[in-house]
Amino acid sequence: MPSPEDTTNIVRNAIPLADHIGLSVTEVSPQRVVLAVPFEGNTNHVGIMYAGVLFTAAEIPPGILALVRFDPAKFYPVVKQMTVDFRRPGRSGVTVVAELPAERADQILAEAEADGKSEFTMDLEVRDEDDEVLMTSHGIYQLRSH
Amino acid sequence: MPSPEDTTNIVRNAIPLADHIGLSVTEVSPQRVVLAVPFEGNTNHVGIMYAGVLFTAAEIPPGILALVRFDPAKFYPVVKQMTVDFRRPGRSGVTVVAELPAERADQILAEAEADGKSEFTMDLEVRDEDDEVLMTSHGIYQLRSH
Repeated sequence: MPSPEDTTNIVRNAIPLADHIGLSVTEVSPQRVVLAVPFEGNTNHVGIMYAGVLFTAAEIPPGILALVRFDPAKFYPVVKQMTVDFRRPGRSGVTVVAELPAERADQILAEAEADGKSEFTMDLEVRDEDDEVLMTSHGIYQLRSH
Repeated sequence: MPSPEDTTNIVRNAIPLADHIGLSVTEVSPQRVVLAVPFEGNTNHVGIMYAGVLFTAAEIPPGILALVRFDPAKFYPVVKQMTVDFRRPGRSGVTVVAELPAERADQILAEAEADGKSEFTMDLEVRDEDDEVLMTSHGIYQLRSH
């Protein structure tokens, strides 16, 4: 199991955009990942968190869960569709909590082993420092075998 | 009317993420904007264009059209919702063409002047150098008065 610091480095090396926005993994296990993204440097034309930063904060956690839970030598995750709803302007750093129950992960793995791919969805909330929801997301991902 | 170069600078100064991904405006008028984003530095864990980069390429053009067509001293655009579909892996730089017909812009302006805000949608395609569609987007925006 990689530490949060190792996972942060893996993500930032794999995805330069994640490095640019200062994304860090603060908690990681095969069932749960928590990310944080700072406010500074991530704003838009009206001084609030830029939409593309919030999108990225929600897009990355399912990929981390897939990389930690499944064997990266055999499988990799890809995003197929994302719907994001912007609820309120972001004026602080944000956090995202993503969970993948063990039973659901077992199903995904069994299907990917049998069919070469398995689709899974994840609904997330990007929250500010006051725990207010800034953005919700509905993502459709695939776990694919190499 | 700002030049494409001036518009590029305005966008990059307003949104650091746009600067980071090397976004440039190659054509701009109140009815039409064309953006380009390079491949280099914008990849993910499997070496293709990162989803958050493609999202950003599609999210920004409607905002530019709004800033060019409407008076920025009176109105500003915000994104409310985006749905993005990833069609195929991106292995080159991308372009996006966004258009706002004059008649539709007049409607948006009239509604924003009357009600303080007006909602508008925009469906876009992010294309690679072979003119293949990598991602489609459906965005819901609001033009709001200050």
